[in-house]
Amino acid sequence: MTNALSSGATIGILGGGQLGRMLSVAASRLGFKTHIFEPSANPPAADVAHQVTTASYENADALAAFAASVDVITYEFENIPTSALDVLEQHKPIRPGREALRISQDRLTEKTFLQDLGLKTAPFADISDQASLDAAIETIGAASILKTRRFGYDGKGQARIKAREDAAQALSEMAGAPALLEGFVTFSHEISVIAARGISGEIACFDPGENIHRDGILHTTTVPARLSAGQRMDAVLMAGKILNALEYVGVLGVELFVTPQGLVVNEIAPRVHNSGHWTQNGCAVDQFEQHIRAVAGWGLGDGQRHSDVVMENLIGNDMERVASLAAERNTALHLYGKAEAKPGRKMGHVNRVQQPQS
Amino acid sequence: MTNALSSGATIGILGGGQLGRMLSVAASRLGFKTHIFEPSANPPAADVAHQVTTASYENADALAAFAASVDVITYEFENIPTSALDVLEQHKPIRPGREALRISQDRLTEKTFLQDLGLKTAPFADISDQASLDAAIETIGAASILKTRRFGYDGKGQARIKAREDAAQALSEMAGAPALLEGFVTFSHEISVIAARGISGEIACFDPGENIHRDGILHTTTVPARLSAGQRMDAVLMAGKILNALEYVGVLGVELFVTPQGLVVNEIAPRVHNSGHWTQNGCAVDQFEQHIRAVAGWGLGDGQRHSDVVMENLIGNDMERVASLAAERNTALHLYGKAEAKPGRKMGHVNRVQQPQS
Repeated sequence: MTNALSSGATIGILGGGQLGRMLSVAASRLGFKTHIFEPSANPPAADVAHQVTTASYENADALAAFAASVDVITYEFENIPTSALDVLEQHKPIRPGREALRISQDRLTEKTFLQDLGLKTAPFADISDQASLDAAIETIGAASILKTRRFGYDGKGQARIKAREDAAQALSEMAGAPALLEGFVTFSHEISVIAARGISGEIACFDPGENIHRDGILHTTTVPARLSAGQRMDAVLMAGKILNALEYVGVLGVELFVTPQGLVVNEIAPRVHNSGHWTQNGCAVDQFEQHIRAVAGWGLGDGQRHSDVVMENLIGNDMERVASLAAERNTALHLYGKAEAKPGRKMGHVNRVQQPQS
Repeated sequence: MTNALSSGATIGILGGGQLGRMLSVAASRLGFKTHIFEPSANPPAADVAHQVTTASYENADALAAFAASVDVITYEFENIPTSALDVLEQHKPIRPGREALRISQDRLTEKTFLQDLGLKTAPFADISDQASLDAAIETIGAASILKTRRFGYDGKGQARIKAREDAAQALSEMAGAPALLEGFVTFSHEISVIAARGISGEIACFDPGENIHRDGILHTTTVPARLSAGQRMDAVLMAGKILNALEYVGVLGVELFVTPQGLVVNEIAPRVHNSGHWTQNGCAVDQFEQHIRAVAGWGLGDGQRHSDVVMENLIGNDMERVASLAAERNTALHLYGKAEAKPGRKMGHVNRVQQPQS
């Protein structure tokens, strides 16, 4: 624990959404304070943070003052403007480091990085215009998804292509943004590994969870996932390879497709991840605390699971079910305190702790 | 859930120590904001609260402004001045109600209340001077403890009497404060029941924990406690009797001695209790959330335990053990962010989650 932050230090967090909120709570359990930097007013994380700066990522003075007030900087989302990072890193360490952000901010860079590591991904091609799209469909096949290279999440910035005729419409939906065509992977189910790397290079993984999506948004994560011992080992080794290649410090989410030909990486997220929320009620050290431990230079928890859990996201008007969810046995509610329950908006989640068979 | 507060409402908490801090975190999980009222600067709860008022309990304006800004008022400690309660209750409901505070603020009133309910307590006598002390020793025996009737906690305001000759010295330690002489109870071990009563009268109890004290401060709580099925049932019934008699709303801690003649009540605390901290890692709904649910008018969790836990308090320089505790498997750290580790000061606790035997 050389250079580890002491209890009482302040963790700066870029982004004040639900992930920042739960990172703040985890930081408090280790005796840390948090300072949230967030452009929008009254973000969810403000309810549980020691300090909040409301300012734009273009405001260099606000960024510098924020950085000066904290001991280390981390983030809850990967799309932080490069110019903001340039300011921040002059003052305090940013963990995970900028290489992880550079790679995960661009789907093309990310897929190329993964392939260079020898990991399997969906077939993909860089798309800049109709001609490159036509050529890519020739190789990959018409059934595909066109995605913006940058700033996509929860299915946003994506256009499904079913047949050659859909290509022009899909391309116009990209609105001129650099794009990537991805082929489909035939898989039995999707899993994710929430992995962490500490400041001295040690790695810890939580047990893989099995994910089900609805309308492009994560619906449930079930732990343990359906995996053979060999697949489980592969998942951990793949996550470790990625973490080491990035000299990563913090928690990383890796989404994987389970196929007869092995595990295929769907995408990586250089942050705590929705599919790791189950750890709050399944592990003594959850993904949020694991991340805080890593960025604070502490030793990691070992990822040990004490209970099986099914996590379910509460989206939009799922909030109407809160009273009945609160009455469920062995179900832990986690609401984000968002004022308005818009369709598609993540409002909270529940972790259903599975009782051992007696 | 009629009249239940909605997610987004604000819970006012009197007291900004570690209990207020953990109540704030639990409130955030249900989407509530918290506003802490605390006379001292930078209290532990401030790190995770939406708002903090730093003012004295004599400041009626600050109390009124605080009350106006919240939807309901609760507290983390029982020794709130009556004058402050008089101001607060004009604005917003105080839960648990004032009867619970009136009774638990005075050891004599509390013991009398318990006896009137038909519950066993240690033998006791009201002490106002040397003559009443001499008379009490005659009845109760010399081996006893003299305690101030009000404002005692963690062994403070107490003087042990071993023989008749100690009586005068013990009385002088009370510094003229009204006192109570308590006889000893011969018991095999001490347990506590953390019980809750909801706004519509429903009751839920967590499994009793077994407590070990060191130097008058709780050292460990182990769950489950060593109890027969009958003793377990008695403990729950006794807690229920107390909750109903007080028309209580919230979480109450009841400390009990296990004796061959049955369970004897040591004391009650009208708040979340140190011996209930294990619930954070043993239950889907912990004591802090249970308390918030009750004061917010929500239905209670059922108290179901999913894991066995041993809780250990970290006192004073136990903080030097943090790095090694952080490395323990299945051990959850909970630090309070207090700046200075004074001897006897509660700095945090760990919950060791016990793995099922395979």
